[in-house]
Amino acid sequence: MTKTANTDHPILDLHARRYSPYAYSDQPVTDVELQSLFEAARWAPSSYNEQPWFYIAARKEDAQQHEQVLSCLVDGNQAWASHVPVLVLGCYCRHFTRNGNPNKCAQHDLGLASMALTVEATHRNLFVHQMAGILPDKAREIFQIPDDYEALTGLAIGHLGDGTDLPEAIRSRDSGERGRKPQSEFVFGGTWGQAAPWLS
Amino acid sequence: MTKTANTDHPILDLHARRYSPYAYSDQPVTDVELQSLFEAARWAPSSYNEQPWFYIAARKEDAQQHEQVLSCLVDGNQAWASHVPVLVLGCYCRHFTRNGNPNKCAQHDLGLASMALTVEATHRNLFVHQMAGILPDKAREIFQIPDDYEALTGLAIGHLGDGTDLPEAIRSRDSGERGRKPQSEFVFGGTWGQAAPWLS
Repeated sequence: MTKTANTDHPILDLHARRYSPYAYSDQPVTDVELQSLFEAARWAPSSYNEQPWFYIAARKEDAQQHEQVLSCLVDGNQAWASHVPVLVLGCYCRHFTRNGNPNKCAQHDLGLASMALTVEATHRNLFVHQMAGILPDKAREIFQIPDDYEALTGLAIGHLGDGTDLPEAIRSRDSGERGRKPQSEFVFGGTWGQAAPWLS
Repeated sequence: MTKTANTDHPILDLHARRYSPYAYSDQPVTDVELQSLFEAARWAPSSYNEQPWFYIAARKEDAQQHEQVLSCLVDGNQAWASHVPVLVLGCYCRHFTRNGNPNKCAQHDLGLASMALTVEATHRNLFVHQMAGILPDKAREIFQIPDDYEALTGLAIGHLGDGTDLPEAIRSRDSGERGRKPQSEFVFGGTWGQAAPWLS
């Protein structure tokens, strides 16, 4: 199945093809693929080039670790993510290394890196389903995450599957249509809430 | 000038070519290009598909608005950004529309959208320089940003220039090498700080 976005304006196929599946196949993600995915994240931009992103990554072959990352997801995500070949926690550092000042863009910059990773994954026919539903305190305990760092997201990475191993209620989510609000509701000119004049 | 990243593993040319320039040419960004850039942002993933990102965007042709966005940047950024063809403020909403609950991933998801926009820009030979150095309170006042929303980043968008209009101190920054820490310092397995075994 593919769920190519029905776009209002032309965009890269890499953007249009990307979505967040629930159904993954058993096909492993190779080490070489993972290296390229995190290399893409590595070259993302960040405030003062701080690179405040950190990832805890587990392949299904690393059974114990995979179980551990899985246990840091909320139940609703564990229900579909247990068979995903690679599970990752996305973390950030609250302060700048250079001077200890708060980094107000740390979460944002984790997002930049994770999106770069996701684009690279799409290019390699891999899919990434990011999750807000994780248990940061449990992750801190299990992986000994220091105080100044925090797990914010989960990332499920692998090839598309047919979903036969999933409960019907979850499988059906993969067949839902992808929707977005129009640009006029989030691209403003002049003042807040006023669509930019060049949109139409 | 190009500053292609010296990568440790193969990645999309779109990632390797991207960087954050200071020198922009006067060549305008067309409306069609802008529509595609924000369309890429539009299709980014977000927690519960909330799409918590909002942008205030000004073309140089919209002189008053461009001045206004420029005035929301810190002095250090105003020094090079005044001639950039398109200036944008990246904003987010703190709460979910559906239930009013706090959205802990709102800043992160703005990052996802802004990176998608940046990849699309690179594909179109445009460059994006994101900035943490903005004045959110001034932006709130000028653009009447409601309480539940906040400006977090600035984005300078345009074609590369030769920098002849820039002070030498700024121009020289464009010639600096791009550097990143190795993956082993941010991709962990097993426990925090321990490089994932499949990296090497």
